[in-house]
Amino acid sequence: MKRSMQAAGEEVLSLLQKKRRTFLSTKEISEKLRVHPYVVYQAIKELRRWDFEISSEKGKGYRLLKSPDLILPGEVKRKLSTKIMGKEVLSYRSLGSTNQLGFRLAEAGAREGALILADEQTRGRGRMGRDWYSPPGMGLWISLILRPNIPPFKAPGLSICAGLALAQTIKRLTRLDARIKWPNDCLINGLKVGGILLELSAELDRTNFVIAGVGVNVNHLPRDFPKKLSARATSIRIEWGKEVSRVRLLTSFLQRFESLYLDFKKKGLSPQRQLIKKFSFLLGKKVAVKFGREKIEGLARDIDDYGSLVIRTPRGEKVVRAGEVTVL
Amino acid sequence: MKRSMQAAGEEVLSLLQKKRRTFLSTKEISEKLRVHPYVVYQAIKELRRWDFEISSEKGKGYRLLKSPDLILPGEVKRKLSTKIMGKEVLSYRSLGSTNQLGFRLAEAGAREGALILADEQTRGRGRMGRDWYSPPGMGLWISLILRPNIPPFKAPGLSICAGLALAQTIKRLTRLDARIKWPNDCLINGLKVGGILLELSAELDRTNFVIAGVGVNVNHLPRDFPKKLSARATSIRIEWGKEVSRVRLLTSFLQRFESLYLDFKKKGLSPQRQLIKKFSFLLGKKVAVKFGREKIEGLARDIDDYGSLVIRTPRGEKVVRAGEVTVL
Repeated sequence: MKRSMQAAGEEVLSLLQKKRRTFLSTKEISEKLRVHPYVVYQAIKELRRWDFEISSEKGKGYRLLKSPDLILPGEVKRKLSTKIMGKEVLSYRSLGSTNQLGFRLAEAGAREGALILADEQTRGRGRMGRDWYSPPGMGLWISLILRPNIPPFKAPGLSICAGLALAQTIKRLTRLDARIKWPNDCLINGLKVGGILLELSAELDRTNFVIAGVGVNVNHLPRDFPKKLSARATSIRIEWGKEVSRVRLLTSFLQRFESLYLDFKKKGLSPQRQLIKKFSFLLGKKVAVKFGREKIEGLARDIDDYGSLVIRTPRGEKVVRAGEVTVL
Repeated sequence: MKRSMQAAGEEVLSLLQKKRRTFLSTKEISEKLRVHPYVVYQAIKELRRWDFEISSEKGKGYRLLKSPDLILPGEVKRKLSTKIMGKEVLSYRSLGSTNQLGFRLAEAGAREGALILADEQTRGRGRMGRDWYSPPGMGLWISLILRPNIPPFKAPGLSICAGLALAQTIKRLTRLDARIKWPNDCLINGLKVGGILLELSAELDRTNFVIAGVGVNVNHLPRDFPKKLSARATSIRIEWGKEVSRVRLLTSFLQRFESLYLDFKKKGLSPQRQLIKKFSFLLGKKVAVKFGREKIEGLARDIDDYGSLVIRTPRGEKVVRAGEVTVL
């Protein structure tokens, strides 16, 4: 379904959730919400499309039987105290890719901070054109529309901020030792639990907009991963041993990311250098970086103010702006 | 009109151009071109929308009275011997901005080298969100869709290649001393004659596509410029004293740009370093660069392999990636 959850749907849902033992008639609902009975009818239809089980009996009305595990826009907004991020939430049951829709909405003028949320991505994207496995119900698959007034060569810093916000949020909620692996992964115990995919529309010295895509494996069990991923990927639940509230993870992440983002726009990456070092998976390790045909080996020493990785090699320090990193 | 010139339009035009003294009937045209009479009717309607004056008399048919000065896709394609650029030409009488349409077409999957051409831009764009004055009939307002497999931080080099191709083309056709002013202008006698506007859709280490917008003031007379531009802008015609064929300028530019582009993709900017220096307006001059709140003064010394300007200051060499340059 390519429509985001409507406000009326959530209001009707909230009434049905309060009266789960009895039936509510269309008339009662429409009077309580002060909407036309047709709006109620449409809302019920929509909720069913989102996999809410609602029984209906002639002359009695509707009754909620079962709710799917969904992140609802209203719930997100109620729990947020951000200034920009998530003030507008577009929630979808299933999308090709949240980043792709984000890009289109941003082009059409969507405002900064708008959040696109999908319960499932059918063509979830990772970096370098790779897939990102995004099954329904167990992950956080989101994209944020950002409009920072920065030149595109400063954008890598933004990706680092998003990664840092994610690692900090996971650590705060679970006490797990979450780390950021330059340039865009989030790891727990060396296994990939999340990733950041930044996409830009930009001129050479001006950014039109940035889409910050964030994917987090939240409540996957080991059997939920395809075989080819299971050796490298994990979920918060697997590492923590408990289920995690996706709404709580999302709202905590947005609070933290917004704070880092506003700071980054004013002062760049330098105020976060110590934190970045603390949460870094690579710094201090011997690594190999491959980019196209180039290959550099050495000691990962720092992440500089532009978000580049600084490597100490036998022939001096090299600043690496992009690439695939392997720990040796 | 938001439709590009159709092939049938150009074929009908070509017949009318050959028989300017007599009338050609719909039947004759449709038989010669082996198309349905309705296609002929549509083509005539289209040509008139493009400001071709065509008289029609009942029972006799059509006759071409006057052609506007237009760059026609078929003519461009016939004169080109490129491999990629301009193999597909979308020509418009009037567009908001060729870059904007290029961006949308590229997103929708348009192939590399596709050329968008407008006789007039109503919201022509310059760098940093500025306007680019693009009146009908006298300029070259084009955008090329490119899909180079480069990380976005190498894109400035592509802008330099486009500027170099433009300066070289103007010099070859007119012997005028055309120069590139870093980062994106083309000057004759210190006055702006053209500009490059590169726009990207990119991840941090991968470019989805690049739109290379090129604007050239070709046949403007001094009175054709608005007052606020006249002190800084010029046209090839003003400097050369003769009218320039826009089609010839376009095809020569595309040949040259394609050759530089293919080289750049393989070897980067370094093979062109000597040429870039030769055509540079800034190198060897004392300059001030402003970028946001930063300001750097010094001697413009070089353009490096990433397309950045290298400035010698009292406190050592500075590499400038973006900004506004003034010659002191």
